[in-house]
Amino acid sequence: MEDQSSSSAASSKTADLDAPLHAIGFEIDELSAHRVTGRLPVTLQCCQGFGFLHGGVSAMIAEGLASIGAHLASGFQRIAGIQLSTNHVRPAQFGDLVYAEATPVSIGKTIQVWEVQLWKTDPSKPTDRILVSSSRLTVISNMPVPEHAKANVLRVKKHAKL
Amino acid sequence: MEDQSSSSAASSKTADLDAPLHAIGFEIDELSAHRVTGRLPVTLQCCQGFGFLHGGVSAMIAEGLASIGAHLASGFQRIAGIQLSTNHVRPAQFGDLVYAEATPVSIGKTIQVWEVQLWKTDPSKPTDRILVSSSRLTVISNMPVPEHAKANVLRVKKHAKL
Amino acid sequence: MEDQSSSSAASSKTADLDAPLHAIGFEIDELSAHRVTGRLPVTLQCCQGFGFLHGGVSAMIAEGLASIGAHLASGFQRIAGIQLSTNHVRPAQFGDLVYAEATPVSIGKTIQVWEVQLWKTDPSKPTDRILVSSSRLTVISNMPVPEHAKANVLRVKKHAKL
Amino acid sequence: MEDQSSSSAASSKTADLDAPLHAIGFEIDELSAHRVTGRLPVTLQCCQGFGFLHGGVSAMIAEGLASIGAHLASGFQRIAGIQLSTNHVRPAQFGDLVYAEATPVSIGKTIQVWEVQLWKTDPSKPTDRILVSSSRLTVISNMPVPEHAKANVLRVKKHAKL
Repeated sequence: MEDQSSSSAASSKTADLDAPLHAIGFEIDELSAHRVTGRLPVTLQCCQGFGFLHGGVSAMIAEGLASIGAHLASGFQRIAGIQLSTNHVRPAQFGDLVYAEATPVSIGKTIQVWEVQLWKTDPSKPTDRILVSSSRLTVISNMPVPEHAKANVLRVKKHAKL
Repeated sequence: MEDQSSSSAASSKTADLDAPLHAIGFEIDELSAHRVTGRLPVTLQCCQGFGFLHGGVSAMIAEGLASIGAHLASGFQRIAGIQLSTNHVRPAQFGDLVYAEATPVSIGKTIQVWEVQLWKTDPSKPTDRILVSSSRLTVISNMPVPEHAKANVLRVKKHAKL
Repeated sequence: MEDQSSSSAASSKTADLDAPLHAIGFEIDELSAHRVTGRLPVTLQCCQGFGFLHGGVSAMIAEGLASIGAHLASGFQRIAGIQLSTNHVRPAQFGDLVYAEATPVSIGKTIQVWEVQLWKTDPSKPTDRILVSSSRLTVISNMPVPEHAKANVLRVKKHAKL
Repeated sequence: MEDQSSSSAASSKTADLDAPLHAIGFEIDELSAHRVTGRLPVTLQCCQGFGFLHGGVSAMIAEGLASIGAHLASGFQRIAGIQLSTNHVRPAQFGDLVYAEATPVSIGKTIQVWEVQLWKTDPSKPTDRILVSSSRLTVISNMPVPEHAKANVLRVKKHAKL
């Protein structure tokens, strides 16, 4: 449909691919074996009590995007995150728009490591990125997809750039 | 009200204390400077595409509970998570009930470290805990509470065991 | 020999089992699939420029002890550390005696997680442990031992409590 | 002196700046607030029992280089590593030459985060770097230098590019 905005397409893609990310309002943009991106408008629902972006939301975005990337890079095997390390670097707050990008650090046959950066733009210098957090997800990747989860692989394939 | 279940009390406490945890259905039980606990019924909204508890949800629970504990242990100063490390150890899945407990590893004047464990019970041996994940949150704690966030401190005080 | 102290036995055991730990003066005491322990007299060679125990030495002790434990717990398969997370909690300094203990957090068929704590005693209250650092090592464990490394397995077996 | 190799200059610089790194044969090359580099010829003293570079040595290099960089970037304040996370990605072994580079991820007034990469070259394609490990060190930096450690600051200043 012509009037469907890229944002609502991103939203329905996210609903298909990652329910908890969809629940907090995150929108996945691109997904490939080399890069997974998206963005989060920081609403009150994403904030902790002091009014800043909840660090756990940053961690969840990192886990979600890196897992999708690792699944793609594994050739659609079942993967599982085994270790997540997140450095919270600068705060984001209600009203900010946060961008996220996951890229591989190392793609092994069994173990993958992905880096995920979250940043916001400085309204006074829109070309400057302000790093909000930087995460590493370690993933184990050589697991067979269980029968009941094959529909998930099809959903990922539908949305991925292959 | 007499008929208010402990679960809905926990739910409204969580709404007061941590919006993203409330949004995924987590319920905070106890909170003190020594221990913060709660539980999560694993719904589809908490799962990744393969039908298992999303690792980012585990990380978010860890960040949330440890942050509340650190805030209490700091004497209600503003605190900020600076580093979160999570090991995902065993899967939980749709229908499981996951318990969470945050306890301090080290309470310094400036830096605190908290450990958060998530576990489920084995239905065949209800006394056995199965560890789902184990996290460490490093927190910086000597920051003044901004004026606009003082209401948050009151909300925490209302719910905490002091 | 009768006059061989337990310390020099520990020293030669460490030389057999972990060359870099031996080089910095660390001594392995016990090793089993459930617990690996040892101690380090903090000499200048273990310190950074400010005269405190080098954080990298703490990390190396954690990696070394947890790796030995994981190798034992895997039934003497080849194991490899894939992720190490260390929280440096309190300083130790020249002249301190630091104790280390590695214990398993989770022993899976493919992935193990070990916790390693370093502590010192408070001279004024010798029964109190002061935590120096706390680490987590994630290990992958289902790898065959290469032919050239079989002598290493024999060395570990010689020193381990089975 | 004309015949003094850059390697022995690096070695004596390392002895001045980081005793444990010097003890394992690591040589610091450059040091500035933007980049700290060095290299390690992998000898048996740096290896674990299976003949591969000990993961704890990689972690120690990361902690050492990032700490020097953070000290420089803080304007020569006392700094302390509080959290180290290392991903071991590919093995290095006896005879390899491993390069290390520390660069800042974020330089805050109180907290700094540094990234340290270790890599080796592929003998068949010398222009290709093979990543051995990637680490993050979180540092607290606003601490006064104690009187007894002022000589250390002078040693760092002597060797740094300011």
